[in-house]
Amino acid sequence: MQLYDYLPSGNSYKVRWVAARLGLKYDHIDVDIHAGDTHTEAFLALNPAGQIPLLVLDDGRTLAESNAIIRFLADGSDLVPADPYAHAKMLQWQFWEQYRHEPAIAVARFICNYDREMRSDELAALMPKGEAALATMDAHLADRDWFVGQQCSLADVSLYAYTHVAEEGGFDLSQYSAVQAWLTRFASQPNHLKITDHPND
Amino acid sequence: MQLYDYLPSGNSYKVRWVAARLGLKYDHIDVDIHAGDTHTEAFLALNPAGQIPLLVLDDGRTLAESNAIIRFLADGSDLVPADPYAHAKMLQWQFWEQYRHEPAIAVARFICNYDREMRSDELAALMPKGEAALATMDAHLADRDWFVGQQCSLADVSLYAYTHVAEEGGFDLSQYSAVQAWLTRFASQPNHLKITDHPND
Repeated sequence: MQLYDYLPSGNSYKVRWVAARLGLKYDHIDVDIHAGDTHTEAFLALNPAGQIPLLVLDDGRTLAESNAIIRFLADGSDLVPADPYAHAKMLQWQFWEQYRHEPAIAVARFICNYDREMRSDELAALMPKGEAALATMDAHLADRDWFVGQQCSLADVSLYAYTHVAEEGGFDLSQYSAVQAWLTRFASQPNHLKITDHPND
Repeated sequence: MQLYDYLPSGNSYKVRWVAARLGLKYDHIDVDIHAGDTHTEAFLALNPAGQIPLLVLDDGRTLAESNAIIRFLADGSDLVPADPYAHAKMLQWQFWEQYRHEPAIAVARFICNYDREMRSDELAALMPKGEAALATMDAHLADRDWFVGQQCSLADVSLYAYTHVAEEGGFDLSQYSAVQAWLTRFASQPNHLKITDHPND
């Protein structure tokens, strides 16, 4: 299979991390989102949404949306709870991540890294939303090691991706001690891959 | 089990629809989001995110996020594809719905219904995003009856919820003929419940 990917993307990092954790092999195709690579005719034929990450299976079938891709890759593994309620709780946190967390924290990081001058008003509006998301996580983790159940699941993967680089978006993680402890715990998982590690290296 | 719900909410409607389709019984608790019912101390103890829909199981465990709740309720039913790829495709569309569709189409509807004067600039910015989401759906449905595979799945449920009331947000569905045919097809499902049908009636 092939993964169309952009290294700094937290959404793509979720996929790289799960593949490394589970020892899955794939061809890594670097896509430069700033050079318009996701809006070429060839790419839009693969993913009309014009987004990475995009997984292409060996038979040509495609899969988009980071949280759907990692669910596919991790099917049957210890990262996916078998119990129906725990499974639904994992999905609860993953939908929350895409609705409340990523649109604030990932977008703030993107603006800080690439577009700070043009989008300063937007950045200011995102900060309290990101802080609220981090506070929600910190409260949940106050008496838990992992977001769902007693071990690392895809909920942790989805939330780690942009939380561990939230300081690039101007968020001060030192306020969130339970989040900090969880970040350290997550990075101790077997085969841990950093967001800056290129899978081809 | 109990469902905390607000009748006009499309996210809550997903849960009501799935429960009706599958013949599941629950206590329906009306919550007035405009009167602050989701921000009382009692409600926040159940759902710190302060949102409906919220499902409370008989043993007191809670579940939030509409797409996670319907996955829990529909576990093992014909609404959830068993094939791993089809399952992941269902999730792809559900994550897309919460990231690209709901934040444009549901929010435009909310503004039109409750807050048009104060948020007219925001509404104007949402319209092209909502049109793009509807165009994506229309293109996908051009040669398909359902979003994933050959039958109605939770992907259809998630997308129907706010698409079928998109005209309340100022969107003109007559431009999207494949979407219109799919809306009609969806409303022909067994035990179809309308968004205006109160489950206690």
